[in-house]
Amino acid sequence: MSWKGQSILSAQQFSPQDLAEILETSRRLEGLLGSKKNLKLLDDYILATLFFEPSTRTRLSFEAAMHRLGGRVISTVGVQFSSLAKGETLFDTLKMVESYSDICAIRHSVEGASSLAARSIKIPVINAGDGAGEHPTQGLLDLYTIHRHGYLERAKTSVAFVGDIKFGRTIHSLIQLLSHYGVHMVFIAPNELQLPQKYADLLDKAGVSYEKTEDIEALRSVNVGYITRIQEERFTDHREYERFKDAYIVDRELIGRCREDIIVMHPLPRLSEVATDLDSHRSAVYFEQANNGLYVRMALILGLLQVELP
Amino acid sequence: MSWKGQSILSAQQFSPQDLAEILETSRRLEGLLGSKKNLKLLDDYILATLFFEPSTRTRLSFEAAMHRLGGRVISTVGVQFSSLAKGETLFDTLKMVESYSDICAIRHSVEGASSLAARSIKIPVINAGDGAGEHPTQGLLDLYTIHRHGYLERAKTSVAFVGDIKFGRTIHSLIQLLSHYGVHMVFIAPNELQLPQKYADLLDKAGVSYEKTEDIEALRSVNVGYITRIQEERFTDHREYERFKDAYIVDRELIGRCREDIIVMHPLPRLSEVATDLDSHRSAVYFEQANNGLYVRMALILGLLQVELP
Amino acid sequence: MSWKGQSILSAQQFSPQDLAEILETSRRLEGLLGSKKNLKLLDDYILATLFFEPSTRTRLSFEAAMHRLGGRVISTVGVQFSSLAKGETLFDTLKMVESYSDICAIRHSVEGASSLAARSIKIPVINAGDGAGEHPTQGLLDLYTIHRHGYLERAKTSVAFVGDIKFGRTIHSLIQLLSHYGVHMVFIAPNELQLPQKYADLLDKAGVSYEKTEDIEALRSVNVGYITRIQEERFTDHREYERFKDAYIVDRELIGRCREDIIVMHPLPRLSEVATDLDSHRSAVYFEQANNGLYVRMALILGLLQVELP
Repeated sequence: MSWKGQSILSAQQFSPQDLAEILETSRRLEGLLGSKKNLKLLDDYILATLFFEPSTRTRLSFEAAMHRLGGRVISTVGVQFSSLAKGETLFDTLKMVESYSDICAIRHSVEGASSLAARSIKIPVINAGDGAGEHPTQGLLDLYTIHRHGYLERAKTSVAFVGDIKFGRTIHSLIQLLSHYGVHMVFIAPNELQLPQKYADLLDKAGVSYEKTEDIEALRSVNVGYITRIQEERFTDHREYERFKDAYIVDRELIGRCREDIIVMHPLPRLSEVATDLDSHRSAVYFEQANNGLYVRMALILGLLQVELP
Repeated sequence: MSWKGQSILSAQQFSPQDLAEILETSRRLEGLLGSKKNLKLLDDYILATLFFEPSTRTRLSFEAAMHRLGGRVISTVGVQFSSLAKGETLFDTLKMVESYSDICAIRHSVEGASSLAARSIKIPVINAGDGAGEHPTQGLLDLYTIHRHGYLERAKTSVAFVGDIKFGRTIHSLIQLLSHYGVHMVFIAPNELQLPQKYADLLDKAGVSYEKTEDIEALRSVNVGYITRIQEERFTDHREYERFKDAYIVDRELIGRCREDIIVMHPLPRLSEVATDLDSHRSAVYFEQANNGLYVRMALILGLLQVELP
Repeated sequence: MSWKGQSILSAQQFSPQDLAEILETSRRLEGLLGSKKNLKLLDDYILATLFFEPSTRTRLSFEAAMHRLGGRVISTVGVQFSSLAKGETLFDTLKMVESYSDICAIRHSVEGASSLAARSIKIPVINAGDGAGEHPTQGLLDLYTIHRHGYLERAKTSVAFVGDIKFGRTIHSLIQLLSHYGVHMVFIAPNELQLPQKYADLLDKAGVSYEKTEDIEALRSVNVGYITRIQEERFTDHREYERFKDAYIVDRELIGRCREDIIVMHPLPRLSEVATDLDSHRSAVYFEQANNGLYVRMALILGLLQVELP
């Protein structure tokens, strides 16, 4: 069954053919937006963004995507400004939102909240991040970014993930998507934050070649470096945190010792793990990556509403 | 004087003829929305939703109603994000909003806030709930829901109100509206939370027949059960609260002993007073009721702006 | 270089010719809005309002201006609901917003935040207030209000500023703008809150005649009284605050002793410094002033996006 007209809950739900189509539609939308900024395709539709957890970037990206398609947006941010503050269950809230909108994007701190939502209501639901679970639209825009740099279809592409591989939901979503493309994966992380067994099994089953290391120097051999933040609270030993925090900084000096054609990605927002001295470097594609979120989310919204690009 | 072009402040302001017209327009809008989701009638209008108290459901309902009519929305939620946090008076805020919008919906914790607003500014004001006062648009969508099930025009319809009848502003608005239709009312509540004298007088004056009881079994003889939450803080004796909290739960078992044709309403959000095992039961109309808010609020916005349905 | 297509960061950036053009466009927009409320000029554009500090009035004014022009809005209010709560730098947030919108208005508690933004991103930035810095769009709407009452072009116009002249950013912006028009300025403030040397130098350089006094009675001779709030925390001596708080109240009695043709302005919100008994007085133009914000901000948005009025 196609994802179209359904919901987007996990990176796992997409077939290679689905992905090819999403990438192509995103590419067409990127071209169209260059000349025209309101495609006027969704005049009859309302998107509800329900962000029970703060995320300016993701919310604004969905809302801008809807506006660029000519649609309308209703929005709620922060649980303390919703009826949830009065004890309302998520279920009742969703049943109401179902009446007021045609599609909704949900961010919630509890893993599985989006799946619950999709089972509760008839309109398409987009998982915009659920706790330590997944963030499939981020994974798709990451995939699109790698695709736009020609690395997805090329043989022998290698992608390194750096930082918090254990809890990073954007990484979880992206490695599932990349498993369809025969890329080699390098997981660079402190042992405490390495690849969860669940995803190791998934990669093994898909026949993906990968390696795990603590050494940031492993970045030197890859085509794509996907950097994420490591958080102090993940460590039991504070000195370990200090050691890795300082070691895992990606800057011009380090990138200067990497492959000429490396691209550096980051889901943003960042702290110090990607130095600002890299921002103007050729390899830095993280702002472009954020921008790509617009095209990919437009493609997904169109697909979920089963509206075709003319 | 018609309510059109004026403000909506209280359920009391509507004549039977007004109500008939609102119900009919809502019905037409419900039909129109089935085939077309943006009626493009209010392209030139801005609705301001000023929610000084949180209420996701009511706010999104007004905003969706405006969008479905083709209008635009500006919104402020939560006093701490407004200039009110800097000591601005409500009056000054309203005078500014008057400049920026064509109609506004106000939710405020203080009874009478909407009336103050309507006296202060020239654009139509909708009372979206003011403290323990009224919530007339909720009353109207409740009325519409009863109408849609054919109970408004039928002889000998009986409606039971269950729970917090003393402080429940949605009940206060609805009983005023129903007083025009010759229905029999049953008030099922702990004595502490029974019908205020003010509303008893109003019903007496209107010649409405009604009875008061503490016994939830009285629900068995009515056509419509309107359930609301009872709150612990209303009771001086905690044991009394526990007794009624457990006794006043409406579930499949209880409804199974009621009339075949009973419908169960609830203004939502609910806690445990309506069991989720009822959600899929034929009698449960509370989600439909929430949905009806869209049509009724569209009808009210059109009337206040004096824009006719084509 | 014209301000068009650039950013609006300071009142100082405008030449007399720029100002004349902004006033004229605002006037045309005021006329157009009287007959048509959606000018449908910015169908292809999105405004992002980034309010890291609360200001209902200013934010809604920008949003209404964009809607009246036919544009769309994405919005974020309150730092605790943005990724900033997770430590995101302003710079990264801005780079994302650059992808999602065509123009942005920024309110921030730190002086210079808007200038940083304008240097960081390619879309036009509007300074909607930065700490004790400037608030140029407020200055422009104040200028427009004085213009609309015919005082800008008239010889020998005198304008008094009352209250917190030291920290009041709206005053700082307005005196810079007025310095082009040969008006006489009177600064009525406690010595602690008098004109900063920086602005005295600026007026001297521009050849503006002005006087400073603590005496509120100086209001009696001017054409325009621009009142602002004085805040307790500005004073080291609490008794001084009490003295001025009571002395600097502008009410009907005081205005009755002023020139017949005086107009009283206030950037709002006010506390007690302008008595409500003045609201219905002929001299009170502060609500009209708030309203003028709509036309001026529409003119500025059009200019920044380089879209001409037909």
